[in-house]
Amino acid sequence: MGLLGRYTFQLQPQDGDFMEQLFAYSLGDYILQAAGKNADDNGFGVRELNRENYTWVLIRMGTEILQMPTIYQQITIETWIESIRFASTTRNFTVRNEQNEPIGYATTNWAMIDVETRKPVDLAKLPSLTHYIGGNPIPVESTVKLPSVDGTPINRHKVQYSDIDFNRHVNSMKYLQWVLNEYSIDWFAEHAIKRFDINFLHEALYGEEVMLFRHAKEDKDQFQISRFVDEEPLCKVQIKWKKNE
Amino acid sequence: MGLLGRYTFQLQPQDGDFMEQLFAYSLGDYILQAAGKNADDNGFGVRELNRENYTWVLIRMGTEILQMPTIYQQITIETWIESIRFASTTRNFTVRNEQNEPIGYATTNWAMIDVETRKPVDLAKLPSLTHYIGGNPIPVESTVKLPSVDGTPINRHKVQYSDIDFNRHVNSMKYLQWVLNEYSIDWFAEHAIKRFDINFLHEALYGEEVMLFRHAKEDKDQFQISRFVDEEPLCKVQIKWKKNE
Repeated sequence: MGLLGRYTFQLQPQDGDFMEQLFAYSLGDYILQAAGKNADDNGFGVRELNRENYTWVLIRMGTEILQMPTIYQQITIETWIESIRFASTTRNFTVRNEQNEPIGYATTNWAMIDVETRKPVDLAKLPSLTHYIGGNPIPVESTVKLPSVDGTPINRHKVQYSDIDFNRHVNSMKYLQWVLNEYSIDWFAEHAIKRFDINFLHEALYGEEVMLFRHAKEDKDQFQISRFVDEEPLCKVQIKWKKNE
Repeated sequence: MGLLGRYTFQLQPQDGDFMEQLFAYSLGDYILQAAGKNADDNGFGVRELNRENYTWVLIRMGTEILQMPTIYQQITIETWIESIRFASTTRNFTVRNEQNEPIGYATTNWAMIDVETRKPVDLAKLPSLTHYIGGNPIPVESTVKLPSVDGTPINRHKVQYSDIDFNRHVNSMKYLQWVLNEYSIDWFAEHAIKRFDINFLHEALYGEEVMLFRHAKEDKDQFQISRFVDEEPLCKVQIKWKKNE
């Protein structure tokens, strides 16, 4: 396999919202699926790493959307590793429509952790990884460290069966779904997501209660999801909106 | 196109639960997607009907699961119209695994309604439909009329952005998701769904509050979802479970 993986997905009706546009969290699912496929293809996927008792953990994600695709379309996601540092890698993505035009970009940071100790692993321990550095940046801002958001919680949610994935924790994109559910369909009819950023701090588990905080700034909304019982921050999300023309 | 349509789907990681098994509501999504594709292929799909100001409405669904598929597998869904009566059609489905073995069956009843009046349309008005009657029953019980369930609501839910599909009402399979979220992951670890039945009575809309009622019987659980404001029943669901061996 080369440095760059290309994966095509057929968008399903259940991936789309009331305007037939892909839910932003479904787009995120496909992006993460492309990352998993590319790591598998290059021999450092989760199943391979589990034999060494290591696993990948997503730390940050930034996604810019030029044009949200609609259901029944196909999208192709290109992905490659831009760089490796001591404890994390940067993996980039270009999302293309059926005409092969770029309709979105994403950049992600991943750490490798020891499954037992949950501590980061020095990525130099996986020398084969360096063969796969593509170097190619994408034409959007890197991932960002999001600020804390507190105050009065705007909502609470108890983690349910449908939130939990095969990693036995809340699926990464469910946090984004919870945040987007704070907006009305009238808002979605008039606005589009320009960019969403997510920082993943700690995993939420089945049955846990979480609370949602929100801070509206001029051109963006910032959210924090914290565990209810000890107020531990689990996830931060920032959404930049643009008004539809 | 022939009487029987065959549609293959690649199951996605986000379709699977903590045991990597397809969520029952994701299986339902694929079954309904096969119905839509087959109606389109035969010239009586929703887009075609909309020109005549008609649309299909799902009234009842019964689904038996022999073996729940897991993520990353492919499934093939065969579908055909078994029969047509004055106001409704029966459409059947066989779900097959990668070895072409049957792993599930579904049967559904659909009415055609006038978009303006919301009243049923005499299906004799669509004579081409009779060319497509396959007649072939499936080896499971027909759809059933489910009883009313009331008492004290066990939960309430406000219809959110993520619940609404391109028909601008709650997606049919979300009712099943709400019901399954009433079970713990410990329950799912020890039980499998043998059969689920759904009766769709009225659509739930964005922002509406619904309440959930439950009645446990010996070998099955019965649920009703009603609109909070006027207690109008919207949907009834019955789940038959089997204990894992």
